[in-house]
Amino acid sequence: MARIRQDFPILHQEMNGHPLVYLDNAATTQKPRQVIQALVEYYEGYNANVHRGIHTLAERATEAYEEARAKIARFIGSPSPNQVVFTRNGTEALNMIAYGWLRHRLRPGDVIVTSGMEHHSNLLPWQQAAQATGAQIKYIELLPDGTLNQEHYDRLLSEGNVRFVAFSGASNVLGTLNPVKEMVAKAHAVGARVAVDAVQVVPHMPVNVVDWDADWIAVAGHKMLAPTGTGFLWGKMELLEEMEPTYFGGSMISEAHLTGAKWAQPPAKFEAGTPNIADFIAFGAAVDYLADLGMENVYAHEKALTEYAWERLSAIDGMRLFGPRQPRAGLISFEVAGIHPHDLSAVLNAEGVAIRVGHHCAQPLMEILDVPATNRASFYIYNTQAEVDRLVESILHAKEFFGA
Amino acid sequence: MARIRQDFPILHQEMNGHPLVYLDNAATTQKPRQVIQALVEYYEGYNANVHRGIHTLAERATEAYEEARAKIARFIGSPSPNQVVFTRNGTEALNMIAYGWLRHRLRPGDVIVTSGMEHHSNLLPWQQAAQATGAQIKYIELLPDGTLNQEHYDRLLSEGNVRFVAFSGASNVLGTLNPVKEMVAKAHAVGARVAVDAVQVVPHMPVNVVDWDADWIAVAGHKMLAPTGTGFLWGKMELLEEMEPTYFGGSMISEAHLTGAKWAQPPAKFEAGTPNIADFIAFGAAVDYLADLGMENVYAHEKALTEYAWERLSAIDGMRLFGPRQPRAGLISFEVAGIHPHDLSAVLNAEGVAIRVGHHCAQPLMEILDVPATNRASFYIYNTQAEVDRLVESILHAKEFFGA
Repeated sequence: MARIRQDFPILHQEMNGHPLVYLDNAATTQKPRQVIQALVEYYEGYNANVHRGIHTLAERATEAYEEARAKIARFIGSPSPNQVVFTRNGTEALNMIAYGWLRHRLRPGDVIVTSGMEHHSNLLPWQQAAQATGAQIKYIELLPDGTLNQEHYDRLLSEGNVRFVAFSGASNVLGTLNPVKEMVAKAHAVGARVAVDAVQVVPHMPVNVVDWDADWIAVAGHKMLAPTGTGFLWGKMELLEEMEPTYFGGSMISEAHLTGAKWAQPPAKFEAGTPNIADFIAFGAAVDYLADLGMENVYAHEKALTEYAWERLSAIDGMRLFGPRQPRAGLISFEVAGIHPHDLSAVLNAEGVAIRVGHHCAQPLMEILDVPATNRASFYIYNTQAEVDRLVESILHAKEFFGA
Repeated sequence: MARIRQDFPILHQEMNGHPLVYLDNAATTQKPRQVIQALVEYYEGYNANVHRGIHTLAERATEAYEEARAKIARFIGSPSPNQVVFTRNGTEALNMIAYGWLRHRLRPGDVIVTSGMEHHSNLLPWQQAAQATGAQIKYIELLPDGTLNQEHYDRLLSEGNVRFVAFSGASNVLGTLNPVKEMVAKAHAVGARVAVDAVQVVPHMPVNVVDWDADWIAVAGHKMLAPTGTGFLWGKMELLEEMEPTYFGGSMISEAHLTGAKWAQPPAKFEAGTPNIADFIAFGAAVDYLADLGMENVYAHEKALTEYAWERLSAIDGMRLFGPRQPRAGLISFEVAGIHPHDLSAVLNAEGVAIRVGHHCAQPLMEILDVPATNRASFYIYNTQAEVDRLVESILHAKEFFGA
């Protein structure tokens, strides 16, 4: 642990006069020096535009950029690197499915199935595609424990016309781990295609896309040690081939004329214009870092830490924790009776503890839970039990301060 | 000049045994240490997700991110920072106009006017929007000197139904500087909206968007010292307000429900998901660097260097230079009789001179010019006459080598 923390320069600072405790990892993670160094080495050594140049710098940049794609493909067990399409974030990956597939394939009467626990990015693209095509959306019920009602899911699938299913592997608010493999298989059994929002899963535990068998998954690189501006869409090759590109322009064509154009093969087809070369090379370094740690170890660490946090938090008087106790992702949303979430978060910040507060881009879920906002502490590889203790301490201070 | 070159670590290396001469700036520019340092400081000091956090790191990140937007707005004379929408590159900016405006506003019979000298990114989005809406595209004729036939442009505008005009401020192949202000005014006179691909202009000379009066301009940050993964769409506020968002998800809504959503104000409306925070903060540092140099000085330097290069290149036997001599942007495309462009470029690379060869994402223009590809040398603030001499020397070596 000490070795890991040494790799993260940002952690060794005071925030508001207290040693920083960063517990906002579900929003974005910190970056190890190996990732920062990859950026510096690129810009100081071989920055050039990729794919289109034959000079040595361009060749080096292209090689490193494509090597990063291969690393990411190996990390998730993708049969081919060409199934990894680089995007700005998880949001773009999900929108590309809507533009490339749903808007061309759905017809009036077709049904999209998703749930009320989704992040806006895994909800609004489908709403817009439904509106554009005349498809309708059905929502899987949420059970009181914060899991999806699987019987209700079965019922929705059996009602017919389901062409597309989208759900998150892990809820960014509830921490619920949905049974991805089973839910994918059920959707396939009725002939539907399935997208999994894996943004809160892939950074935290071993994932094998062949095992999951989803048709697409969306991932955010910046939530797994990589620079901001990185994410990817993974897809089955036959679907990437049948999808339309979202953006049109340089590097995504095989030929272009005044009368029209033909597209390149995936992934180039989906990567119009100069890509974010440096950050994806650094994404490769992030994946190296995680692979070196071992994702089984990452998961075990987070699981133990989250279990410890649950135990300590639930012992606080007036504490409400959202979602199931286990299995869960490495994050906990909570509220403390008598303290507005924003006030609580502000007190924690004053004591150096950075957590998130708000609707977490999941307003429909806030409506279902009937809360205006929640506090959320989310963990990653560099967080410690001592930091959880700091979180708990600060909550107790806040309770004292507000007389709650 | 020595001081400027000291700021660019990458320039001080050998490529294939020769001091590097980087003349591929129209593809992407190199980055000064100030820009690289901005990235390092961000990741080592205050990396956090923007807009949605109230902890101190998130506040610092948000402030720096929005300060970069304000710097860029000032750099181009934008009335408000909120008119600057951050994108991955110039390509994304142009596609956002097509998704946000053309696809919702054009009707069968409407006319789009553009030209055959455009980069694919300033052509394919309009072709796709035309196909989706039933609009048609008319192309302004190219004159033999590589400029647009302004009389033909007048005629196309006078034929009626022109709703949208798109052209580049500077051709990335011919170097032609189109008369932006005049062409915009003519389009407005017939009630058309105008997008200017300013990717090869804003990095190289003073630009004031109020003076130009275009409705939108597209710019690539990575072509003006900023990191890869940066660009922006500038638009008039009333157009940004009437445009639909392209991507849907987190951070771009004012409210979201299971039944639908409402959008935030520009620019948030167009920036769904976690943005490329670090690279835009560094884009701010790039703009500081250019503003310190003064864009008048940048333009004067490039103009003198390009004029010198034109003189020296045109003295080479069998040399064909494309486009007008003056006025022109800081790039020159050329071919040498008897040497395939790729072979020429390979010889130059072996002697440490990095130029670009290919269709430059402008295949229709290659068809018009009736060439398979061109060589292109493109200049920036750190290039010198001595480097132009190296270019010329290497071309002479290639001629000798190929007996051309």
